[in-house]
Amino acid sequence: MTKIAAIIGGGVIGGGWAARFLLNGWDVRVFDPDPDVARNIRELLDNARHALPSLSDRVMPAEGDLSFHSTIADAVKEAAYIQESVPERLDMKHATFAAIHAAAEPEAVIGSSTSGFKPSELARGAENASQIMVCHPFNPVYLLPLVEVVPGPDTNDAALKHAFTVLKAIGMKPVKIRREIEAHVADRLLEAVWREALWLIRDDVATTEEIDDIIRHGFGLRWAQMGLFETYRIAGGEAGMAPFIKQFGPALQRPWSKLTDVPELDDALIQKIADQSDAQSGMYSIRELERIRDTNLVMILRGLKAQNWGAGALLNNIDSSAKEAEGLPELSGLVRTLHRTVPLDWLDYNGHMTESRYLHAFGDATDRFMEIIGCDAAYIASGGSYFTAETHIRHLDETHAGAEIYVDTQMLKGEGKKMHLFHRMHHADGRLLATGEHFLLHVSLKTRQSCPPAPHIEAKLREIAANHAALPIPEGAGRAITKP
Amino acid sequence: MTKIAAIIGGGVIGGGWAARFLLNGWDVRVFDPDPDVARNIRELLDNARHALPSLSDRVMPAEGDLSFHSTIADAVKEAAYIQESVPERLDMKHATFAAIHAAAEPEAVIGSSTSGFKPSELARGAENASQIMVCHPFNPVYLLPLVEVVPGPDTNDAALKHAFTVLKAIGMKPVKIRREIEAHVADRLLEAVWREALWLIRDDVATTEEIDDIIRHGFGLRWAQMGLFETYRIAGGEAGMAPFIKQFGPALQRPWSKLTDVPELDDALIQKIADQSDAQSGMYSIRELERIRDTNLVMILRGLKAQNWGAGALLNNIDSSAKEAEGLPELSGLVRTLHRTVPLDWLDYNGHMTESRYLHAFGDATDRFMEIIGCDAAYIASGGSYFTAETHIRHLDETHAGAEIYVDTQMLKGEGKKMHLFHRMHHADGRLLATGEHFLLHVSLKTRQSCPPAPHIEAKLREIAANHAALPIPEGAGRAITKP
Repeated sequence: MTKIAAIIGGGVIGGGWAARFLLNGWDVRVFDPDPDVARNIRELLDNARHALPSLSDRVMPAEGDLSFHSTIADAVKEAAYIQESVPERLDMKHATFAAIHAAAEPEAVIGSSTSGFKPSELARGAENASQIMVCHPFNPVYLLPLVEVVPGPDTNDAALKHAFTVLKAIGMKPVKIRREIEAHVADRLLEAVWREALWLIRDDVATTEEIDDIIRHGFGLRWAQMGLFETYRIAGGEAGMAPFIKQFGPALQRPWSKLTDVPELDDALIQKIADQSDAQSGMYSIRELERIRDTNLVMILRGLKAQNWGAGALLNNIDSSAKEAEGLPELSGLVRTLHRTVPLDWLDYNGHMTESRYLHAFGDATDRFMEIIGCDAAYIASGGSYFTAETHIRHLDETHAGAEIYVDTQMLKGEGKKMHLFHRMHHADGRLLATGEHFLLHVSLKTRQSCPPAPHIEAKLREIAANHAALPIPEGAGRAITKP
Repeated sequence: MTKIAAIIGGGVIGGGWAARFLLNGWDVRVFDPDPDVARNIRELLDNARHALPSLSDRVMPAEGDLSFHSTIADAVKEAAYIQESVPERLDMKHATFAAIHAAAEPEAVIGSSTSGFKPSELARGAENASQIMVCHPFNPVYLLPLVEVVPGPDTNDAALKHAFTVLKAIGMKPVKIRREIEAHVADRLLEAVWREALWLIRDDVATTEEIDDIIRHGFGLRWAQMGLFETYRIAGGEAGMAPFIKQFGPALQRPWSKLTDVPELDDALIQKIADQSDAQSGMYSIRELERIRDTNLVMILRGLKAQNWGAGALLNNIDSSAKEAEGLPELSGLVRTLHRTVPLDWLDYNGHMTESRYLHAFGDATDRFMEIIGCDAAYIASGGSYFTAETHIRHLDETHAGAEIYVDTQMLKGEGKKMHLFHRMHHADGRLLATGEHFLLHVSLKTRQSCPPAPHIEAKLREIAANHAALPIPEGAGRAITKP
């Protein structure tokens, strides 16, 4: 599969797609007659570069090439994946598909970002309906993993499978919708909330800020990690889901909501919302709000990653696959035990990598070294591990979020229950950022006492010791902080 | 104000209130005729003790006393705050209020956890309607900050003010609803989503798991940090809120959702939901799901705390107020620079405090020491700060989540641009967990070069140096990891 994506329509959504493909190593070819398209996509790319690498605990692939094209034909030829994000007008969508079909490869996926139309509507009259499906993403497309994938009656299974492969490869969570309906699933739910929220504003029950505060201090926190049904399952408790659901019956019949009517969205209501929104968020520019939102999303997603749950489990799976594909490092010289970018949650108030994250990186490097010598998750589960007894760090240079760093590890000693490691942390530009010297003891996790490791580990330690015997003792090893 | 809360009704919601009050140092008196109430509240307390302390970067107050009472009168007398969480039947609510009024203090707040009734309905026929208001919380009450506070027409302003004071004191975010309506605000929004979700399940558009995945990989992540309107403000971009809102007009008129109908919640639909939910989450017990949810919420909230945004900003404000109330520590002997519990995001895969968080705690202790000597946020903003050049840590003992730890700091040298600190980290039980020795240099943040600190800092360093001269050099200071 050629890693070439065509982006037809380069607004907030199309530009978000472009940024996600580019940062995942795809070449991106954009068509959009808007003279502002290049500026818009550059700004979205800046945002994506700021936030997306923080979702990985590895280094992202090299960015692909971005090019702008003056015809749809020129943009889509050779593309393995084509994403249409033109305005929500069916005639425009149909004209766009016709132009795409005139030049696209017959096995390319044609995904539509439409939030409202059904795939059967989109494919009406199309030259090759088997390629067309809805691939509906969520803003910011470069950070939020969800894509609702809705095949139409004529969409072919190979195209659907191909779409899933591509979307997963760029870090997304495609969810296949079982039956096409207008607005798919998420926007149905959002539309319901939106309609109700308009009534609340119109009737002065709450302001935009109060509604937002109610969401983000309440059910919004639940929904970032479980959804509607898993949350209710807990609320139902040991009695189970069925009796819990049953009790909602009467409530549904109560005239609680005004959902049966649509409030008139007249100029007065529109102005009221705009004024309340200014009072709530007017102190920030849209660009500032985007950065705040993106960093918040990174913090939330990294929290879920540490829990290996929901969208965080998805991110861990992506890291694991990349790690597996990479295999074990060379052991003949220094061992490459870490290679990653500095994520947004590793910064201090000055925007530099904070003190404790140097040890975090060295700790990860030690974990990786342990894994390499056979002290892996299975061995630890069987009751043996290494504990760090002593650490000496020299902070030699500063680094920032997004910086590519790596750690090379020298084993100064690895014999019996003792292991003595010396890590050097470099910036990708070659600067030595810090050294970490660590003395570890092999322990039994049952007795919490030190003891020799298993024979397969001792053998590996001997192999590395023989290789590393020729390396000079590093500058700074065995050093103490000057005696007071 | 006496710190006594009466909890009338001790189910999931009442028990959640009880746990939140207790862990914030209030005495809690519970009335509930259910013979299982004590077990239920103990289980909720276990959950709360597991998660709530992780939201603070300080030590929580000592837990209050929990007692169970056989009459409402006995539970509510002397209470400053009374929370009613009995089943959602208006006759039961009225009988409960009558019993409360017979014994309660006239200035006590009477909050109702009702999700559906309006305060005017609750207060109908009450002896003292001025005390009664809706204080509607969200499950899990011990973690989620939101309380919808809805005063009725007869609620008195002093009672409302008192309620806000109490709710803020136990870490909550009270939002006053401007006009009473059935189901207040959050449940109106939730009800709208729920109704739509039932259609999606009934019509086989998506399963419970697919809907949950769509929420937590998509808009749920947005809603944990901004709400509906701030998110749309960003989507609207520089053009502004009003034109963006306007474009929703036609969409609202489209027959996208089935909101105008209520699906029949018959046995077949109930069973379908229950079966899908089993397939999705049946591998976990309810207790396990609660723990997973709570730890997820802690991770998300701590991420937002690092960003000082939304519910995270609320938590930071609580920490700051407590810190301000505490004032500066004694400087005559060792300086107490840290006192906190070990939060859930500081653990390794074995459930112990992970290596790098020792340095995190020592780094926080160093920051606090800097603040004490006058190198505070204002000074740093003016362009001076200390950078750590070298660190030596000895890991001496293990600790777990929820453990109370403190750090005492000895200044070995503080002269000119040099500062040499020795931190001892103890468990509250007295065990020495680790020592951290740090060599720092005062720097100009403009030139990134070392330079002497401001005179007020030098003076403070001389004062502490004079006090600490009499202290013995600590065991382990100036020590190196054995030369290989």
